[in-house]
Amino acid sequence: MITVLSGGIGAARLIRALSGVIDPTQITAVVNVGDDLVLHGLTICPDLDTITYTLAGLNNDELGWGLRDETWRVMDELDELGGAAWFRLGDRDLATHLYRSQRLSEGATKTEVTAELATRLSVNVRLLPVTNDPMATEFVTDRGRLTFQEYFVRYHHDVVVTSIEVVGASTARLSDEARRALHDASRIVIAPSNPLISIDPILQVPGVREILHERRENVVAVSPLVQGTALKGPADRLLRELGHEASSLGVVDFYEGLVGTWIIDEADAALAEKIRGRGVHVEVTTTIMAEPDNAERLAKAVLA
Amino acid sequence: MITVLSGGIGAARLIRALSGVIDPTQITAVVNVGDDLVLHGLTICPDLDTITYTLAGLNNDELGWGLRDETWRVMDELDELGGAAWFRLGDRDLATHLYRSQRLSEGATKTEVTAELATRLSVNVRLLPVTNDPMATEFVTDRGRLTFQEYFVRYHHDVVVTSIEVVGASTARLSDEARRALHDASRIVIAPSNPLISIDPILQVPGVREILHERRENVVAVSPLVQGTALKGPADRLLRELGHEASSLGVVDFYEGLVGTWIIDEADAALAEKIRGRGVHVEVTTTIMAEPDNAERLAKAVLA
Repeated sequence: MITVLSGGIGAARLIRALSGVIDPTQITAVVNVGDDLVLHGLTICPDLDTITYTLAGLNNDELGWGLRDETWRVMDELDELGGAAWFRLGDRDLATHLYRSQRLSEGATKTEVTAELATRLSVNVRLLPVTNDPMATEFVTDRGRLTFQEYFVRYHHDVVVTSIEVVGASTARLSDEARRALHDASRIVIAPSNPLISIDPILQVPGVREILHERRENVVAVSPLVQGTALKGPADRLLRELGHEASSLGVVDFYEGLVGTWIIDEADAALAEKIRGRGVHVEVTTTIMAEPDNAERLAKAVLA
Repeated sequence: MITVLSGGIGAARLIRALSGVIDPTQITAVVNVGDDLVLHGLTICPDLDTITYTLAGLNNDELGWGLRDETWRVMDELDELGGAAWFRLGDRDLATHLYRSQRLSEGATKTEVTAELATRLSVNVRLLPVTNDPMATEFVTDRGRLTFQEYFVRYHHDVVVTSIEVVGASTARLSDEARRALHDASRIVIAPSNPLISIDPILQVPGVREILHERRENVVAVSPLVQGTALKGPADRLLRELGHEASSLGVVDFYEGLVGTWIIDEADAALAEKIRGRGVHVEVTTTIMAEPDNAERLAKAVLA
């Protein structure tokens, strides 16, 4: 049984790779919900959906998000009505949000709805929102305070960030299922997701840091940076803007006290000794999962 | 200035006919919201939408509801996910509900959102929900207590109704705009909508009955029944089940004290004397609006 702390696409790819190496039913993902939003009355969970769609083989590789074979009739009409169409929701994707919003309104928890959607889409990995409570990652920027999706989608993270706040995190309750998954896993994996906006919101839920700290010898983290650069998204820029070093070493320090073993990319091999100096194990392999062979190698390193 | 108490399709057709005879900007519709619902997180206003779509020339005549050139991608996907797809929402139609739900969540009133949608769709008649407060028409039936759309759509009104309750009506606040439209109109028209489930919820909003009673010499009602039969929907059956006579006379008695002039169909001419006996004026004309000529004749009778 392994448990993966997960953001969106980076985590989805790692979990997909892990599923190729071990029985998917032995994998649990504890997923960030800090970028969840309510828009048009719909509860949208981008990270959970990205993982679900990717593991179902339904992800849209062209866009890098959403579902394949997507159409945009609703958004096109909404745009004509003068509605807020900047957050693109495809017709197929909307069905997920309608389903979730209805079930939540009937009293189901986010954990239950996530499981229902996974079952419907034949996903065998267990997906758990870290909490059933609302949490919202917000950004103080040169354009004012922004919600996650304003920051990420509307402004394409092209703003100067001075601080990040995860509203609701300090009072959010770690779900029983997520708590058990963290306690019972033989190994906890921190996916190569954005440390500041994908993983940190999970760590801010009371209890998570404590469990990781206690179990750090069983915690393996994959660095999301290669030669100081994020493969996707604003992790490097954010680390710099918020006073961290934009390198695997900076990420190691960011997770100080929570990780026993680090996996870094071959291109960062020169950092291995310095990272070992922080008192952790270091494995050097490919962390770029574009090629299936590399993804499998990384998965095996994570499980080794 | 005339003001029309309105349900859905029957009212929409009358208003469309009236718009052909007088300047549409001189017409206000005060519309039932008792069949509004929140489904999948979306606030849906079937009567307001039917009128808006019909006046915009976008109504789907084939279905008798919704928008023309409609597609069903979201519903098909929702059905595959096992979601509640019995209440069919087309892709174009969904854009309306997304727009409304988002604007309501931003603090706009239903009155404001209705005006915005009408403007976007170039509707010149003024459409006013009778209240901005929530109201829900519910049915006590042989299948238990049903919401409006469960009764109407899910069970196709093929159930035995023992009573109807408009939850929230007694505390709903007649909107200022609707109150003024009723006060200021030179004529108030009661559309040939279902008396029990389209018009009565409007009448139950405190203040409406009083205004109509005071102004009854200026109130014209069009009977929704022809030879005891509703052209569409369950008005006749409901009247019978709830102890009223299923005829134009039954409807006249249902609206007792609120109407000065009745318009009934030629086929019911034999009832005219009996209705006059109730102390009201009676005009006999065609009330069936299928032919444009007939619709115009009816509109002229209403305005005469």
